[in-house]
Amino acid sequence: MLATVLHGPGDVRAETVPDARIEQSTDAVVEVLLSAVCGTDLGGYLGVDPVRGPQRMGHEFIGVVTDVGRDVRTVCPGDVVVAPLAWSDGTCSFCVNGLPTSCRHGGLWGEAGADGCQAEAVRVPHADGTLVAVPGHPDFALQSRLLPLADVLSAGHHAAVTTDVRPGRTVAVVGDGAVGLCGVLAARRLGAERIILMGAHAPRLAMARKFGVDDIVVSRDQAAIDEVRELTGGDGVDSVIDAFGSDQSLATAVGVAKDGGGVCLVGVTGQPTWVDVNTMVRRNITFRAGVAPTRNYVPELLPAVLAGQLDASPLFDMDIPLSSVADGYAAMGDRSAIKVLVRP
Amino acid sequence: MLATVLHGPGDVRAETVPDARIEQSTDAVVEVLLSAVCGTDLGGYLGVDPVRGPQRMGHEFIGVVTDVGRDVRTVCPGDVVVAPLAWSDGTCSFCVNGLPTSCRHGGLWGEAGADGCQAEAVRVPHADGTLVAVPGHPDFALQSRLLPLADVLSAGHHAAVTTDVRPGRTVAVVGDGAVGLCGVLAARRLGAERIILMGAHAPRLAMARKFGVDDIVVSRDQAAIDEVRELTGGDGVDSVIDAFGSDQSLATAVGVAKDGGGVCLVGVTGQPTWVDVNTMVRRNITFRAGVAPTRNYVPELLPAVLAGQLDASPLFDMDIPLSSVADGYAAMGDRSAIKVLVRP
Repeated sequence: MLATVLHGPGDVRAETVPDARIEQSTDAVVEVLLSAVCGTDLGGYLGVDPVRGPQRMGHEFIGVVTDVGRDVRTVCPGDVVVAPLAWSDGTCSFCVNGLPTSCRHGGLWGEAGADGCQAEAVRVPHADGTLVAVPGHPDFALQSRLLPLADVLSAGHHAAVTTDVRPGRTVAVVGDGAVGLCGVLAARRLGAERIILMGAHAPRLAMARKFGVDDIVVSRDQAAIDEVRELTGGDGVDSVIDAFGSDQSLATAVGVAKDGGGVCLVGVTGQPTWVDVNTMVRRNITFRAGVAPTRNYVPELLPAVLAGQLDASPLFDMDIPLSSVADGYAAMGDRSAIKVLVRP
Repeated sequence: MLATVLHGPGDVRAETVPDARIEQSTDAVVEVLLSAVCGTDLGGYLGVDPVRGPQRMGHEFIGVVTDVGRDVRTVCPGDVVVAPLAWSDGTCSFCVNGLPTSCRHGGLWGEAGADGCQAEAVRVPHADGTLVAVPGHPDFALQSRLLPLADVLSAGHHAAVTTDVRPGRTVAVVGDGAVGLCGVLAARRLGAERIILMGAHAPRLAMARKFGVDDIVVSRDQAAIDEVRELTGGDGVDSVIDAFGSDQSLATAVGVAKDGGGVCLVGVTGQPTWVDVNTMVRRNITFRAGVAPTRNYVPELLPAVLAGQLDASPLFDMDIPLSSVADGYAAMGDRSAIKVLVRP
């Protein structure tokens, strides 16, 4: 089958790999309908993170189950499924306590020995704990709305939930990438009173307007902090979503938080990323750093997506066949695309 | 009146200053019954933090109201009162929302223009919002139990509450100073299943045993992390109280936290203090940095203190007259005392 393999900085290829097949009795094989390229896929591609040998790529997909191991109970061939960004058994103490991303038998797509999802098919370990079946046979438009549940939409929701976004609260989102824009969608859905986006790229800011942002701040660092504070009567905002993930974005995120407020980092860098906690102590800031436990959120958000009330699919501003996946990485890398859809 | 003034590193003196008196209609004057020396008083004394001119010292006290401004309603002369580590108006949006340490009209004892509490008397701004009256005329033993409410006991409680300590949860406390030991007391009171203290000073560890700690870890850094993980079956603990406040203690605190767990820093340094948030993202650690809003906790904890169920007074292992306050700083500075009681 065809799958995406990163060989080194700037060198990503769609190439032939062994077909996905059942290896454990709890596995399923899923034929991919749609996958995507994520900002976190770019670390190795752009040479920021080390690439240790050829690596399968992609961690967001929806597909159709084609085969299941003999112990799989909750999905069967023909089911259309959403797969979260990590697999998990659904039964260990972490899964039971709502943290499937820390599952004792879980893992990430593309890790050594695991399939990536920018591929024709994927072997899914612990299929019962991992996959969420959706009703019927979604058309392409609905597939495009479902796919963001796998990562970015759930990530935005996670950031909003963990910073206690709710009616009456003010929100700032640092970063205008796909996760930041999904943070806007999530905050709007949760009833935020006012949402400020801090970003700089015109097409993304235009989309943020469509997604319901109230104010846009294009300056950076201290100037951005000053501007957000001015917009909020000096106090700063209740909830801050850092969807970028650098020392600078963290300082900005903490700087715009209201005393007693919450900051969530969902932008993962793979690099040491430092924050001066002394800037938080006197102000009682709660800081949450967390990859989204998307497996929890897929069932929660699915009804709103199916009903068309929650639609992150406009993020996909480029649509390529798997054989041209390298073009998608290039477009994400130079920011000419917000988010790239990959069709096998 | 006599009051403590820090003139520079190593130079702290009890000296004569103008008498405390009513300046605003919302002020009270409180004659100090007992005050204390806190670890955070040592920053300037030990030369770690800058000393910008002579500074009044002390932010923990109980006393007797001797005078009140014409707009004071909730305390009157003769009342014995506990004063939290910050004054606050009790009516602004931060106070109403439970964060009096961020009060719009609040401040810290010893700041420019404000009295310190290692003194014979203190002018208390916003007396109604700040002071908590206690019933009757407590004897010395009860006074010693009440005084820790002003700071260290409330700080330990704050750290325990913000890291969600409750029955069934495991707790690690980093640091065996007064706040760390109060963290042990608070965690025990809130029903923690198991409490591990990480410290190195024999008299403090002995007191920790009395306060109900289950395990003591004396190693540091990675060895300490390994030991706590071994004690907890590899998982780490649910709640971590960092009562020290350095880059190293933070790395240790994050290192012993269970995935999905909480870390609270209550040890204030006054210096930039850095944590690598990338070590938290994959594990969904919640980090709270916060000076305790003690004004909230005094009424909550008072009944247990009055009933003798919550007693941090054994921390006071040195008891000096105000005129000898420099001896108290010296003893805290060289760690020959855990916490020093100062009697005017």
